[in-house]
Amino acid sequence: MQVNGQPMRTLRPAPEGDALWVIDQRLLPHQLQERALRSAREVFVAIREMWVRGAPLIGAVAAYGMALQARRDASDDALRNTAQLLCQARPTAVKLAWAVQRLLALLHATPAAQRASVAWAAAAELAEEDVAVNAAIGRHGLAVLQALHAKRNPGGPPLQVLTHCNAGWLATVDWGTATAPLYQAHQAGLPVHVWVDETRPRNQGASLTAWELGQAGVPHTVVADNAGGHLMQHGRVDMVIVGCDRVTARGDACNKIGTYLKALAARDNGVPFYVAMPTSTLDLSLQDGLREVPIEERSARELTHISGRSASGERVEVQLTPDGSAAANPAFDVTPARLVTGFITEHGVVAADEAALRALMAAH
Amino acid sequence: MQVNGQPMRTLRPAPEGDALWVIDQRLLPHQLQERALRSAREVFVAIREMWVRGAPLIGAVAAYGMALQARRDASDDALRNTAQLLCQARPTAVKLAWAVQRLLALLHATPAAQRASVAWAAAAELAEEDVAVNAAIGRHGLAVLQALHAKRNPGGPPLQVLTHCNAGWLATVDWGTATAPLYQAHQAGLPVHVWVDETRPRNQGASLTAWELGQAGVPHTVVADNAGGHLMQHGRVDMVIVGCDRVTARGDACNKIGTYLKALAARDNGVPFYVAMPTSTLDLSLQDGLREVPIEERSARELTHISGRSASGERVEVQLTPDGSAAANPAFDVTPARLVTGFITEHGVVAADEAALRALMAAH
Repeated sequence: MQVNGQPMRTLRPAPEGDALWVIDQRLLPHQLQERALRSAREVFVAIREMWVRGAPLIGAVAAYGMALQARRDASDDALRNTAQLLCQARPTAVKLAWAVQRLLALLHATPAAQRASVAWAAAAELAEEDVAVNAAIGRHGLAVLQALHAKRNPGGPPLQVLTHCNAGWLATVDWGTATAPLYQAHQAGLPVHVWVDETRPRNQGASLTAWELGQAGVPHTVVADNAGGHLMQHGRVDMVIVGCDRVTARGDACNKIGTYLKALAARDNGVPFYVAMPTSTLDLSLQDGLREVPIEERSARELTHISGRSASGERVEVQLTPDGSAAANPAFDVTPARLVTGFITEHGVVAADEAALRALMAAH
Repeated sequence: MQVNGQPMRTLRPAPEGDALWVIDQRLLPHQLQERALRSAREVFVAIREMWVRGAPLIGAVAAYGMALQARRDASDDALRNTAQLLCQARPTAVKLAWAVQRLLALLHATPAAQRASVAWAAAAELAEEDVAVNAAIGRHGLAVLQALHAKRNPGGPPLQVLTHCNAGWLATVDWGTATAPLYQAHQAGLPVHVWVDETRPRNQGASLTAWELGQAGVPHTVVADNAGGHLMQHGRVDMVIVGCDRVTARGDACNKIGTYLKALAARDNGVPFYVAMPTSTLDLSLQDGLREVPIEERSARELTHISGRSASGERVEVQLTPDGSAAANPAFDVTPARLVTGFITEHGVVAADEAALRALMAAH
């Protein structure tokens, strides 16, 4: 991705192998600032406090957390404790645990003296895999967009795509998942316009997706989360594409709170609803997403207070709700498989159906 | 309603008949400040800039706008021009035009010398009617709540009611429409807990509904607009009740943007979805709400910027979106009749069905 006209990734390992530089995404869209993470504990804080967020990115960052620990103390006990700590940083994203377990298993099978260098290389490999996976999702998603554009508006106005939250470049090492097809479409000259859901309470759409689409020059318009149904009712959305944090064997998709409402509106208005899914997000051990996926309840303060840029250019936090009013903040919801048109994976587009999902996994 | 322990209405005519005092609702929940409106032009600004909002309240305030004009210049031409001006302040709410036309017709039939006093009395009468209508909606809605509580949780935990936007005391002269049953339930000892949708972009739920429920001592929790579907999926909502700005003959309900998404979620989860509707909001001249109700597009700034109380207690506006990102702000959407369980009117509960709605109107 280009940022300020320069190619950039969302993470940057220090050449000395003693730190991982990440973007403090809490400061976007008003300030682009990188911070160095120098220990597994700092990685834990960065994930928990959402300096970095997005299932693929926190997987890669957590892998570097294991590598930073291996440099400091590579004993089995220390690595196991670190793995446990990192997995607790965000309970919903299966990819976090997946990345940490992958590093842990590899290091257990590696002589202690080589663990630091092996871990660093493994984390880098995991990051490269994420880039490759997202690029592949982009190619398969582009084919979906091209087919839809040919059907709806051949040679005509831009394809109207709605997205929720940030399953973008910033949520991954590069490309994004839900945004990868959009960036590839833009580069291929297929006209797209993106409706960006604000995504309360953390506003990842308004602050992150809008920012990165703007950096890439992709036409977009921010809307309140409330507006998507109305836009679909009036034929102003050709397709919805979102990311996911965990998908069950039968195709229930856990994603940012509010995704389910957009899926309902898409179904009610005949709008295709796609979920961009790296297959590492698929959890074949689960069936019923509503009953089995734990939903993270985050701090009420994310809802009662909000930060932005004041007229004088400073970052200011303001309180929105009255003193004494309680607030609740479930961070994810589950979209049942029946509402999902298809999953766009790195191996191609697949139906939201257990047989299809298992067949896809068996073939790769 | 009690505010700071004292009975209060949302409007207060000056005893001299030369001003209408209203609450500047833009300053809530952090500051309760009344302002005097001394001319029809000031009334127009107060409605357009949303110092006052809510279909019933702006109807009553607009009626006082006609009365203030009648005091200044009660000629036919002046009154007609004022009526036209006031109706333009908010295009969606049918009650605004209804109130203005009622005053205009009355004044045309009144000798010029008596118009000022007749108009003032007529505006007061209209305000009293609003109070009576809302109290009646409250009684009929209370019966719905009682029946539901008896069925779901007899003697058990509070009935869980979700509401969107502010169809509350602050949206009317007193009681509110959607909130009237909640206040009456609370007074009658029927335990209720209210999920308050934040209602982006203007946050009427988080700033107004939460504030007035808090003043009245009604237990409530603010949630992001995105959360309602998830709460319903997990059985945490027993009923939805919202207000409306315009309802068509067949029962399509135009209300604050995002209402449609909650109606879809209610239907998908078997949750009753009620619309509190003063029958003056019913527009029997319309059929298809999606095609025929004009939807107000408000300033993008309502989405890109937000005001709140800073740590030092000042009201501060901050920018949320990146420079250069466009934003769109449709203010209402239409919930098709098929998703509405019933309308709670001042004459009783009625189905979302043309025959039922016409029969109700014919009987009263």
